[in-house]
Amino acid sequence: MKTLILTGALAAAVALQAEVPYPSGFRGWQHVKSIVVGPEHPSFKNRGGIHHYYANDAAMEGYRTGKFRNGSVIVDEGVFTKDGEGQAKGIVLEGERRSVEVMVKDDQLYKETGGWGFEAFDGDARTGKLEASGRAQCHSCHSKAKDRNYVFSAVRK
Amino acid sequence: MKTLILTGALAAAVALQAEVPYPSGFRGWQHVKSIVVGPEHPSFKNRGGIHHYYANDAAMEGYRTGKFRNGSVIVDEGVFTKDGEGQAKGIVLEGERRSVEVMVKDDQLYKETGGWGFEAFDGDARTGKLEASGRAQCHSCHSKAKDRNYVFSAVRK
Repeated sequence: MKTLILTGALAAAVALQAEVPYPSGFRGWQHVKSIVVGPEHPSFKNRGGIHHYYANDAAMEGYRTGKFRNGSVIVDEGVFTKDGEGQAKGIVLEGERRSVEVMVKDDQLYKETGGWGFEAFDGDARTGKLEASGRAQCHSCHSKAKDRNYVFSAVRK
Repeated sequence: MKTLILTGALAAAVALQAEVPYPSGFRGWQHVKSIVVGPEHPSFKNRGGIHHYYANDAAMEGYRTGKFRNGSVIVDEGVFTKDGEGQAKGIVLEGERRSVEVMVKDDQLYKETGGWGFEAFDGDARTGKLEASGRAQCHSCHSKAKDRNYVFSAVRK
């Protein structure tokens, strides 16, 4: 994984950003799409498994309009997989939750990172684990989708 | 796949069952769980891919209480998969919708099949494809879960 070297002013600004809260109740939000990160992908060790994306109502409006208003929240939930047994042999089943990654739109609170605040939670933890460098990495990668308001995903119909 | 031979009276009763309507809007319902049917599973040819399960509000109450009231609907959506390319190599992505399988609770309309009506739709079709024998097969297999009101799935928290 690339390490991002932040220059003083930006590093301080990102470090001082408001905390991104845990997205309580996200399992009841709109399911956006899913992917499976397999063993051949470089991120498998850290992110292998099924990933489900969810959006709250404000983010759903953003997917439709192309403009994500403040309060939009998108969640990437990672779930460990386990192999089915017996009659379920050959079926991949969901196991424990692996991770909850969140992006929250607030163009004032998170103005140094494109108006989005980023956070990541391990398993069922409610306390985020990202430091300034991690949040800056999220922003850096999502900047590839700057013309889509920093959002990679699209809603599967 | 086993063929079910129905005796006259049951066959006629199942054949006359009320139609199970297409579950419009199910993508906005609660996501229950997902599985991936892989190439080593005997059903891969017909059902390979990612399967998402969804429940309407009445069915969600059923998962909580163990008793599914009339109007409960559970959907099994099959989605073809495709392999990611470039930076997404090693990631399994969702492709076209493969199937929509539905079970609807109505203890009067579907009393011959445990109070559940079964239907299956190919891809984005809105017209069901099951004949009496197919519906009887659904019922036969779901009868393994008769003590759980014919429901196999449970909601992942």
